[in-house]
Amino acid sequence: MFRLDELVARLGGELIGDPAVRVGRIATLDTGGEGDLAFLANRKYASRLKDCRASAVILAPDARESTVLPRIVTADPYVYFARVAQLFNPPVLPPAGLHPGATVMADVPPSVSIAPGAVVEAGALIGEGAVIGPGCHVGRDAHIGAHSVLHANVSIYHGCRIGARCILHAGVVIGADGFGFARERDGRWVKIPQTGRVLVGDDVEIGANTTIDRGALDDTVIGEGAKLDNQIQIAHNVRIGAHTAIAGCVGIAGSTVIGARCMIGGQAGIIGHLSIADDVVVSAGTLVTKSIARAGVYTASLPVQSHPEWVRNFAHLRHLDAMADRIRALEQRLDKADPAE
Amino acid sequence: MFRLDELVARLGGELIGDPAVRVGRIATLDTGGEGDLAFLANRKYASRLKDCRASAVILAPDARESTVLPRIVTADPYVYFARVAQLFNPPVLPPAGLHPGATVMADVPPSVSIAPGAVVEAGALIGEGAVIGPGCHVGRDAHIGAHSVLHANVSIYHGCRIGARCILHAGVVIGADGFGFARERDGRWVKIPQTGRVLVGDDVEIGANTTIDRGALDDTVIGEGAKLDNQIQIAHNVRIGAHTAIAGCVGIAGSTVIGARCMIGGQAGIIGHLSIADDVVVSAGTLVTKSIARAGVYTASLPVQSHPEWVRNFAHLRHLDAMADRIRALEQRLDKADPAE
Amino acid sequence: MFRLDELVARLGGELIGDPAVRVGRIATLDTGGEGDLAFLANRKYASRLKDCRASAVILAPDARESTVLPRIVTADPYVYFARVAQLFNPPVLPPAGLHPGATVMADVPPSVSIAPGAVVEAGALIGEGAVIGPGCHVGRDAHIGAHSVLHANVSIYHGCRIGARCILHAGVVIGADGFGFARERDGRWVKIPQTGRVLVGDDVEIGANTTIDRGALDDTVIGEGAKLDNQIQIAHNVRIGAHTAIAGCVGIAGSTVIGARCMIGGQAGIIGHLSIADDVVVSAGTLVTKSIARAGVYTASLPVQSHPEWVRNFAHLRHLDAMADRIRALEQRLDKADPAE
Repeated sequence: MFRLDELVARLGGELIGDPAVRVGRIATLDTGGEGDLAFLANRKYASRLKDCRASAVILAPDARESTVLPRIVTADPYVYFARVAQLFNPPVLPPAGLHPGATVMADVPPSVSIAPGAVVEAGALIGEGAVIGPGCHVGRDAHIGAHSVLHANVSIYHGCRIGARCILHAGVVIGADGFGFARERDGRWVKIPQTGRVLVGDDVEIGANTTIDRGALDDTVIGEGAKLDNQIQIAHNVRIGAHTAIAGCVGIAGSTVIGARCMIGGQAGIIGHLSIADDVVVSAGTLVTKSIARAGVYTASLPVQSHPEWVRNFAHLRHLDAMADRIRALEQRLDKADPAE
Repeated sequence: MFRLDELVARLGGELIGDPAVRVGRIATLDTGGEGDLAFLANRKYASRLKDCRASAVILAPDARESTVLPRIVTADPYVYFARVAQLFNPPVLPPAGLHPGATVMADVPPSVSIAPGAVVEAGALIGEGAVIGPGCHVGRDAHIGAHSVLHANVSIYHGCRIGARCILHAGVVIGADGFGFARERDGRWVKIPQTGRVLVGDDVEIGANTTIDRGALDDTVIGEGAKLDNQIQIAHNVRIGAHTAIAGCVGIAGSTVIGARCMIGGQAGIIGHLSIADDVVVSAGTLVTKSIARAGVYTASLPVQSHPEWVRNFAHLRHLDAMADRIRALEQRLDKADPAE
Repeated sequence: MFRLDELVARLGGELIGDPAVRVGRIATLDTGGEGDLAFLANRKYASRLKDCRASAVILAPDARESTVLPRIVTADPYVYFARVAQLFNPPVLPPAGLHPGATVMADVPPSVSIAPGAVVEAGALIGEGAVIGPGCHVGRDAHIGAHSVLHANVSIYHGCRIGARCILHAGVVIGADGFGFARERDGRWVKIPQTGRVLVGDDVEIGANTTIDRGALDDTVIGEGAKLDNQIQIAHNVRIGAHTAIAGCVGIAGSTVIGARCMIGGQAGIIGHLSIADDVVVSAGTLVTKSIARAGVYTASLPVQSHPEWVRNFAHLRHLDAMADRIRALEQRLDKADPAE
């Protein structure tokens, strides 16, 4: 439990009301009770303040007088909520040290935790306080930055570098070979060795079973602060800018460069060799087939219909060109019939 | 090998013909031979009965006289076939006991099988007869129900609960952090601790490399009897109803609620915060962007075309609004020309 | 470092210039320097030859006189580049032998390398020189062909067969149960045992976290030389022809048969029970819902638009049938007005 004045001393904000009130859990305006700190991040829920039973509330300056509850006023209540939630729910990390069931062929600092079943190859560098989960493999000469956490069964191929304070969820694969082959005349494929690395910046989070391939000649690069959800596929030589967030199931093909602070919706796809500007938002399910030079929101998806409606409407998609011709023909006939128009 | 009268005694159905006939394998009408039990699940294949060489056949009441072979008559031959196939092919489970290569920090019943390389953390509860495969990680305080089977390299995060008789295929990840961040004004992301759990009901099957994230505050819930195929991504706080089946590569975004007995086709996507009614069918590849309030089949996908046809037709998709305007203009011109129409 | 005459002796091609020149790295025309071998695979970059500082160049017969640098002339410079790159970058394999941290219940040849944390079940057959990475599971009676490499945390279910010289990247799952259930009248699912296997031919590469399900009765088959990228899902009883290449995130539903030398673009989907001819190319993001009988390129995807344009244009997709009706009505009105047309 934290006193409100402690919270403000640590995290900033203006405190209104009894500084000795103690809170220890985050809650919504509806569910909060004794000991809970609720938050109003969106003005449209302000009416819920009047029935709120939480011990205190986080809110924005324009809502400061909307309640008589003890409150913390801050420019961005949602970010403040996130910081308080971190304070209330610190990560539970395993104890430092190498479990006897781990196989560690490199020198690691005593502050590192390596779980049973993990394998760390020769030449790997593991930063202070890093956590290597059960069943993880850290390949030869790979680097794991200080205080980064690898959950269970993460695979880091040789030579790849993970920054500091990263979180890699279970099943992540970093540095598998990019999909690079030369094609012989008879259709057989000749493998092109993938000799680049994957470089992951500081403060990156990577979701469960996401895969990031190593570069062919140059490196694949994930900028600092980027957040990747689950089951994303990042191909060789892709570069992703700082603080870009990518939702689940997205695929990004080879050599595409994505700017900083972009947001890519779930199941979106971006084909290879494109350039996407900073601050671009791609909607869920959208396949991007051309470079995007300017910030903005971009979309390509279909409206869902009941199956019979879809059958009726979408049959015409095969004949759009003919429809356009028929419209043009109608215009010409009318023009001829009435040239004055 | 089973006698036909044994099968009927165990699984029901009406037996016509020699009860002493013995069968031990399932086969199709075309491939069945001596010792095989074939089945007719779809009337349109009834003509194949006349050349069928299987020792016996499962069929529906309306086909009872379509063959002279020994036969089991049942209301639903396909379900009957599935039950017989289970009888003929019981799962081969590893022996009970803890392999010395496993790391088990919890008390587990002697009937449990834990493979080498598996790690079970303190506080975990493992039900009678459960199987924990090689390389699996069962986090602290996680529960695995009786007779559930975790294949190789499954990761269960702390506190998550798996029901009884579940099957989790290799590479499944249950309970990784949901994708939750607050955004600062400069675009940096602040992680929101994900303090909910994943609750998986009884008799759920989860395919290889599928991921189900833990809830942010509340739990993510998979209803009993649900069947999930491979490489599905279920985001935080999703709730999936009982007996819903989801095909491979589907993504379901955060907080969406899906009803009971739904069927979601492969590569479909459902965006966040939606509500999908019971008994809804979503076709393969369909992106659902609005809640669906009534049972039925829903579709949104494009017809495949040869590339040149696609180029010709789909250029017009950028100009549908202009096409609609031109049709309206034509109608107005004609109305003016012929006001009597 | 290799002398140019050594390269030509091993890999063929015509050498023009000093045979004693030594090269040891592959580079592009722009970045190559002393000791580098550059390549011109596409005539449109020929102008870059004049500033190229590499020690030698690989090029096609029609470019043989485009530079005075030492050069290797070959019919297909890109394939030649791939072979030289393989020579310059031989795979670094772990030493042969069974690590004490591995659990091996089968007899394996001394040339095999098995890493810590790997589990090889009874009855498994491992070919000469094969590499089983850390955390891999090779199920009972599974076969791994000679010189195949399983990277970390690969799961091979019982009875599946992997050919010779295959590469399976981290997190691959081969032989999990196909998604097969019979549905009871009340919506419950009854599991159909999946008793087929997965058969993977020689020289197949399978990308990280790709999953290939075992067949229901018959086998799932991946033809020799096929190349599969990351996060692909192949359902039960699919058959994929030799030398077919499939990009990341593709899903192929049950029982579909794909020909030889096909190329399937990223995030494409192919529904079940289809037949795709040899030499078919499917564009990225395309959902294939009908069989394809002839070689060619097939596409179905939407043009990306800025979000406001998309809203304006795509609203009409729900009303295409009505638009078609209105065009027909206009044509009839004009025909009536001017029957001579």
